[in-house]
Amino acid sequence: MTTKLTTNDTLSSFIDKYDNFLFDCDGVLWHGDQAIPGVIEVMNKLRAKNKRICFVTNNSTTSRVNFHKKFDRIGIEANLDEIFSSAVATASYLKHIVKLPADKKVYVIGMNGITEELGKEGIQSFGGEADNGVWPNDPIPNDPSVAAVVVGLDTQVNYRKYAKAFTYLRNNPGCLFIATNGDTTFPIHGSLFPGAGAIQAPLVTALNRQPDAVLGKPAQNMMEAIFAQYDFDKSRTVMVGDRLDTDIDFGLQAGLDTLCVLTGVTSEDQLLSTSNTTNPTYYMDSFADFSKVL
Amino acid sequence: MTTKLTTNDTLSSFIDKYDNFLFDCDGVLWHGDQAIPGVIEVMNKLRAKNKRICFVTNNSTTSRVNFHKKFDRIGIEANLDEIFSSAVATASYLKHIVKLPADKKVYVIGMNGITEELGKEGIQSFGGEADNGVWPNDPIPNDPSVAAVVVGLDTQVNYRKYAKAFTYLRNNPGCLFIATNGDTTFPIHGSLFPGAGAIQAPLVTALNRQPDAVLGKPAQNMMEAIFAQYDFDKSRTVMVGDRLDTDIDFGLQAGLDTLCVLTGVTSEDQLLSTSNTTNPTYYMDSFADFSKVL
Repeated sequence: MTTKLTTNDTLSSFIDKYDNFLFDCDGVLWHGDQAIPGVIEVMNKLRAKNKRICFVTNNSTTSRVNFHKKFDRIGIEANLDEIFSSAVATASYLKHIVKLPADKKVYVIGMNGITEELGKEGIQSFGGEADNGVWPNDPIPNDPSVAAVVVGLDTQVNYRKYAKAFTYLRNNPGCLFIATNGDTTFPIHGSLFPGAGAIQAPLVTALNRQPDAVLGKPAQNMMEAIFAQYDFDKSRTVMVGDRLDTDIDFGLQAGLDTLCVLTGVTSEDQLLSTSNTTNPTYYMDSFADFSKVL
Repeated sequence: MTTKLTTNDTLSSFIDKYDNFLFDCDGVLWHGDQAIPGVIEVMNKLRAKNKRICFVTNNSTTSRVNFHKKFDRIGIEANLDEIFSSAVATASYLKHIVKLPADKKVYVIGMNGITEELGKEGIQSFGGEADNGVWPNDPIPNDPSVAAVVVGLDTQVNYRKYAKAFTYLRNNPGCLFIATNGDTTFPIHGSLFPGAGAIQAPLVTALNRQPDAVLGKPAQNMMEAIFAQYDFDKSRTVMVGDRLDTDIDFGLQAGLDTLCVLTGVTSEDQLLSTSNTTNPTYYMDSFADFSKVL
């Protein structure tokens, strides 16, 4: 059972109930490079009420530093250490959980966000944007120093990248297959395009093998990182997102209350459909609607 | 139970038993642009014994006319009407089974073989090699005249092609999702790379939808085309291939005897493994071994 926040009473009670707000970004705060109307003011007012805020995004295309610049550009206040992305989660996973040896390398299908975050953890990587463009059909020798292939959203993914990743995963014993996140689609240009979960699919099919780890929401690694960094009371923390299978499931798995906004990929019909089994605690048309009570 | 052809007796009996030989090409007759040693002579001797020959390939990258040139280049005799490819099968399917209206178009993820064969059937198409290269991240408007998306092997597949195909399939009611073939890998440069069945996987994942039709071996459409064109006695026809899940299954489904050669993707261990359920009637190291008796 999910409750729609519409009246001033329900909106006010919600704000009073939580000290800590975890936000998905695209579809909640902005669309592409445009703030969702009214959201900037509401975010400023949350800050003014001393609410603690974190941003939790499955977008791996941009580094934490460049995400921070994006917040500046759009006009939403954010601190670097409030930003958790699937690229950060992936680099942290390879560094602290896998403990990738220093002489091993990562092959990346993805954009600069991943290679930059890997570099910050001292992990050698190659591929990524360097492998964009037309492939001259040259042979692809194996590189036995590749101990992991990381696949994230890559709007320049191409056959050369798949052939390289396939070659390393097929030939190097123990080579890990890591997905930054499993989102099957992502919103762009007011539409939907294939997401990281779709980008990785040719490797799953050609290798007949699932990824060894899928990081990002709803996986709990980013939640653990947030709670390791911030002393949040779970009962006073809410996860706000637009996507049921990532954002809302991410909150629910952690035992948090959740709020689904309808400014992103989920429609009210989908949310209330009897086939939907991921029910947020609350939902509302737009997070900007809190302007009525803030 | 499968029988290995090794002795001169078994080899001679095999040649005498069949009048009609259906051949897969890559891994059986050649590797890339190199004939498998000894195969040219054996093929010439089969012709000299008045055996009927057809070539049945899931390779959709090249048109029938260009395949014919490849046979010439490699030095294996072939007639144009003996060549059956998954691109020909796809064009024929859209023309004769789907009966695509003349004002509708096909969007192609694949190479010139597909667009050329579609053109020969009078079917309008776009995409394919024209969409190679780096995508400038421009918006992709829908085109309501797209009534089918065809996906085949494309060694220049890229995100733009996936985003376009996804857009048409998602927005155009009844738009067909057609795969030229389902091979998950294909041999190149003495190695394996992701095949057409892997190339199509991002659309399967992003759309949460399987293709409406997967043509090529082991689908029986090419077999029906061969038997419609040639008056072959099934009991005197054998399918020769290197791949269990396409070539051998293709023959078995049609009720033909089958011969698996070990010059391609299947190893003797895989063939004889208890987990293998696709058992050819016969197998042998190389088709060239018939030189002993021809």
